[in-house]
Amino acid sequence: MRMFRNDYSEGAAPEVLAALVATNDEQHVGYTEGDPHCEHARALIRQACGRDDVAVEFAIGGTSTNLVCVNGMLHDWEGAICTPDAHINVHETGAVAATGRSVLPTRDRDGFLSVQEAERVWRFQTGTGRHMTRPAMVYISNTTELGGVWSLERFDALCDWSASHGLKVFVDGARLGSALTSPAAQGLTLQHLAERADAFYIGGTKNGLMFGEAVVISDPELREAFPYLIKERGGLMAKGRLLGVQFEAAFTPGADGTAPYWKHARNANAQAFRLRDQLVALGFEPYGDAPSNQQFFALEADVAQRFVDTAGCEVFEELPDGRLLTRFVCSWATTDDDVSELVEFARGL
Amino acid sequence: MRMFRNDYSEGAAPEVLAALVATNDEQHVGYTEGDPHCEHARALIRQACGRDDVAVEFAIGGTSTNLVCVNGMLHDWEGAICTPDAHINVHETGAVAATGRSVLPTRDRDGFLSVQEAERVWRFQTGTGRHMTRPAMVYISNTTELGGVWSLERFDALCDWSASHGLKVFVDGARLGSALTSPAAQGLTLQHLAERADAFYIGGTKNGLMFGEAVVISDPELREAFPYLIKERGGLMAKGRLLGVQFEAAFTPGADGTAPYWKHARNANAQAFRLRDQLVALGFEPYGDAPSNQQFFALEADVAQRFVDTAGCEVFEELPDGRLLTRFVCSWATTDDDVSELVEFARGL
Amino acid sequence: MRMFRNDYSEGAAPEVLAALVATNDEQHVGYTEGDPHCEHARALIRQACGRDDVAVEFAIGGTSTNLVCVNGMLHDWEGAICTPDAHINVHETGAVAATGRSVLPTRDRDGFLSVQEAERVWRFQTGTGRHMTRPAMVYISNTTELGGVWSLERFDALCDWSASHGLKVFVDGARLGSALTSPAAQGLTLQHLAERADAFYIGGTKNGLMFGEAVVISDPELREAFPYLIKERGGLMAKGRLLGVQFEAAFTPGADGTAPYWKHARNANAQAFRLRDQLVALGFEPYGDAPSNQQFFALEADVAQRFVDTAGCEVFEELPDGRLLTRFVCSWATTDDDVSELVEFARGL
Amino acid sequence: MRMFRNDYSEGAAPEVLAALVATNDEQHVGYTEGDPHCEHARALIRQACGRDDVAVEFAIGGTSTNLVCVNGMLHDWEGAICTPDAHINVHETGAVAATGRSVLPTRDRDGFLSVQEAERVWRFQTGTGRHMTRPAMVYISNTTELGGVWSLERFDALCDWSASHGLKVFVDGARLGSALTSPAAQGLTLQHLAERADAFYIGGTKNGLMFGEAVVISDPELREAFPYLIKERGGLMAKGRLLGVQFEAAFTPGADGTAPYWKHARNANAQAFRLRDQLVALGFEPYGDAPSNQQFFALEADVAQRFVDTAGCEVFEELPDGRLLTRFVCSWATTDDDVSELVEFARGL
Repeated sequence: MRMFRNDYSEGAAPEVLAALVATNDEQHVGYTEGDPHCEHARALIRQACGRDDVAVEFAIGGTSTNLVCVNGMLHDWEGAICTPDAHINVHETGAVAATGRSVLPTRDRDGFLSVQEAERVWRFQTGTGRHMTRPAMVYISNTTELGGVWSLERFDALCDWSASHGLKVFVDGARLGSALTSPAAQGLTLQHLAERADAFYIGGTKNGLMFGEAVVISDPELREAFPYLIKERGGLMAKGRLLGVQFEAAFTPGADGTAPYWKHARNANAQAFRLRDQLVALGFEPYGDAPSNQQFFALEADVAQRFVDTAGCEVFEELPDGRLLTRFVCSWATTDDDVSELVEFARGL
Repeated sequence: MRMFRNDYSEGAAPEVLAALVATNDEQHVGYTEGDPHCEHARALIRQACGRDDVAVEFAIGGTSTNLVCVNGMLHDWEGAICTPDAHINVHETGAVAATGRSVLPTRDRDGFLSVQEAERVWRFQTGTGRHMTRPAMVYISNTTELGGVWSLERFDALCDWSASHGLKVFVDGARLGSALTSPAAQGLTLQHLAERADAFYIGGTKNGLMFGEAVVISDPELREAFPYLIKERGGLMAKGRLLGVQFEAAFTPGADGTAPYWKHARNANAQAFRLRDQLVALGFEPYGDAPSNQQFFALEADVAQRFVDTAGCEVFEELPDGRLLTRFVCSWATTDDDVSELVEFARGL
Repeated sequence: MRMFRNDYSEGAAPEVLAALVATNDEQHVGYTEGDPHCEHARALIRQACGRDDVAVEFAIGGTSTNLVCVNGMLHDWEGAICTPDAHINVHETGAVAATGRSVLPTRDRDGFLSVQEAERVWRFQTGTGRHMTRPAMVYISNTTELGGVWSLERFDALCDWSASHGLKVFVDGARLGSALTSPAAQGLTLQHLAERADAFYIGGTKNGLMFGEAVVISDPELREAFPYLIKERGGLMAKGRLLGVQFEAAFTPGADGTAPYWKHARNANAQAFRLRDQLVALGFEPYGDAPSNQQFFALEADVAQRFVDTAGCEVFEELPDGRLLTRFVCSWATTDDDVSELVEFARGL
Repeated sequence: MRMFRNDYSEGAAPEVLAALVATNDEQHVGYTEGDPHCEHARALIRQACGRDDVAVEFAIGGTSTNLVCVNGMLHDWEGAICTPDAHINVHETGAVAATGRSVLPTRDRDGFLSVQEAERVWRFQTGTGRHMTRPAMVYISNTTELGGVWSLERFDALCDWSASHGLKVFVDGARLGSALTSPAAQGLTLQHLAERADAFYIGGTKNGLMFGEAVVISDPELREAFPYLIKERGGLMAKGRLLGVQFEAAFTPGADGTAPYWKHARNANAQAFRLRDQLVALGFEPYGDAPSNQQFFALEADVAQRFVDTAGCEVFEELPDGRLLTRFVCSWATTDDDVSELVEFARGL
């Protein structure tokens, strides 16, 4: 059975793999500088963003992208406000601290950074001037760690608050494809992100690329910093072509005018919704509202273990009632048959 | 009226100032190395600790001491478990992050790091191996940020837990004099600290010195690291004599066999208890249990402001009922008359 | 005409590309942990090293590998002795400083770290104790920045000196294949490296892999540190399979018992030697002794420019006599025809 | 006999010590913020600098000052060009690297940073763009490590070059008093420094203060950064009064209109020149040109050792001819009698 463990458990989507193979014999200068694939990919992404004046840079993975961007958007004594479950706060082994910057978690429990909590942290941290880390940016992820999707309204409210307090906005888009193609986006588009976020990234690793993330930068400080920091932090690929070629393939519109990147994201969402609906129909209890390619269920321990063993699901935590919060992830590669096979298996439990 | 703002608002105690003046014309090699005052002070402190085999180092202030010790006790990818109100978590402008290490706050709300919360953080942080910052030490302060005092029993319970999980124990002793001379210490002595903590410091700045802290180190890694880190982090005094002379004066027993350091701490506590008792007798409401030289009261806003204006008190936060958490601090320099004058003033409010 | 610019301008060798394609549909847990390709690659590399007891880790590129290894082998206040032209000293944008560690360059001018210069730097840096960065490792690269190849005798002399001074030995093996298959190695083998170096890496990016380096670690401190640091520094690949699959392909012996990794290196060297011999026969003047896949020539400015324009060569510096130090690099992909075409072009200059 | 070892071997000058004693019973808020002594000292220093628009900050010692200033003047990926013997390059245990910034030494051998060498390093470091640390400031010390004094002309030439390349200028003024009161200054004044340097510090520790340095800042980036960084790096004194009081005493003009700071520096120079002239008259061979409070002699080993044993002199290095480079330092505290006693001793050798 196909694993529903993670979207990064998958290989590259067909058109991406084909592009890598097709360009394998080319020779290029390297470092994402001056090769036609990187330049073309940049142009395609700028076009999709509806802005000519943003910088588009490439990185290998999410942690590298996050640490370079947070580093480059903050002074040494500043910090990023985020939710307590934010990837930079818990899952990156202190990568932000390793750049000398601080992570300033709120008490939000649903994965969304709220204006109210951001305001509370901001007040607290600025209360005694230089004796405390100064908040200078907000970090959010879309989708959230719990599969939540930022709506246009919610996003704009946070941007408005941030602007009024002089804070920059960064969006971790490891699963941005799933977020922006979700009905829950309610008007939040790539163009809108490019308009309002100081920087964000378009995650490739989890949506059809072999690996790679594309960073869209408006912030002038990060724009200056990124090319140096990505090298200094060890994230600059010698064979820059590899990143350009993949994003070129992912963002070149197909016959129907849609780029594969969005098709893959829509498939991941659609399969996740089918999975959710069918498991719910079988009586399994969904947990929270995750209108994206991750679905969470509250399961009895033995049932959870069966999904872990057979479908590679991950257990996130033990819920207060003793049940286990269990995650199912769909991807560009998940098929109708894959979901049906899982549902069949679930039916037999 | 004398300010009750902070113990570091005071100058040096008489015997410390006299020693600085008396040795002003001496010439020494510097850097706390090889001058007789530093060596004598080290010997006095080792004697007070009841251990010949600990290293005694000197530092200029609390933040410098904390950042060097946390840095030297942790690998790059490790973190220190502490309470959310810990000085290293909120009042040092990200000094620990600036060394690349992480602060891992619990949810303890009373200033004491509990075994239960330490265990919870430890479990969480070690759940996914290298993807999260590894806890490798606990940081506590005695007295706590809220004036609490660690009892022998409470301290040993934390040390036992830490030992069983392979974590080191560090005690921020900015107000260690007040803590160890408080009745609430219930058997916790300097000797016991030296026996069980991997490192701790004896705060001088807040207890009669012009400035300076003495660090007592058992941990072999910090022992190797400290001499280098204190220089690399800019905390090594060229005129090392200044630190040696002051601790020599503070730890040389007087005619009655007691070192000035302990006398000063006892005075600070005694005046704080008088202040508390007399304000309580006047109907003011104390907040929490602070058996040390800091006293907290929950005051109406206008009353708090009068204490701020006249006695230099600090307001910590607004309590849920709208009253203000207000702090009064006594020191080696606080006299009976000072407290009486404050009480008179309070009576008139 | 094929570029002779750099070995990292090339794509993946056929068997590596084929392996990536063949495994593209597999699903794995990720992070180089527990997937069969990474485990197999580790086993193949341990076997090639002749040691079961070394750790084998994977990284994406050279800068990432270097910074993690130097970081993990040194305390905060320590430094790595290296030549002034060492990659960590000049070409990595301060990546070592960004981890807080120091680079301690000698005055060696030929790319080889000499015992005499290492000794001089060591004496200087340890002369005033903690006031200076303490040298704790030597960093060398094989081949050197100038295409030099370490012989067994030279390497052992440095290892002996390092051992006698308590310094660790790290070998940057970005071009290790070329070095170990060069006649100039004179007995220096992978097994010997594994025996004497505290850590080294086997460069894949420049020798037939799409990307990736394999790090072989004996040093117990780096062994503990690497898994955490590679994540904290953003160098851990989510799709760890990609690294395992490539090294598996490169180190699986072919029908003749030789692994592709060594075949590719031998081809790069052989083509470089042909290129050198034929250019020399045409009267071009070689520069220095580079018995490896990089060849250097001292060329008149106009001639150099023609090679830059046509063959993508890089000019390293202006020599004292005004001529330009120009580099030609061969790779796994360079063919007899490629070299012949270049030589024909040179003949016409 | 008085030691001629170092100017930081001395205590505080009389007026400084008196001021510390006189203000010992005052209570202040702390942290160099808002106490009248710090504000008065700031005003006096701004007045001496002839500029109202510079920030004046205080620090405890030289390494702390240097690391905060270099940190605050550079981005993460930038470096400071300096001489190889610069304090930040050799005597501060990698303090700059510990902030993630790089030190970029030239090959200047006389202690002065030359335009020619600065240009060479700048060209080299900017040759390959982001692959190398970007130079963004020059660091010089006045006096130099070898007792040299910057003339107006030499200083302006470096400032002109720096300005034309977009680099900032920082002056380590640990011994600025001696430098500016030396005849070799040839017109370089405090006002001129304040006009042209982006930041510099007025060293107190080595010129009559018990401890402390005053930093004069024009650079807007450092101006914003300093208050936070000095706290984050552990260099902010809780009892800020101590720094304000001392600089107030040192910069309050006496009856003759001259501030003690300059009188002390003139005395140190005058005694150093007497010492030099009289030793030269006895046939001892001076080394280099050090028109300041440090004097260097090339001495036979046995003679050097006698000066080490009796006068606390330091041997810097062995010269090519086998003699030892030996240093004599005079200070605010050195008297005519001290020098005469040393000369008598020398006569007997």
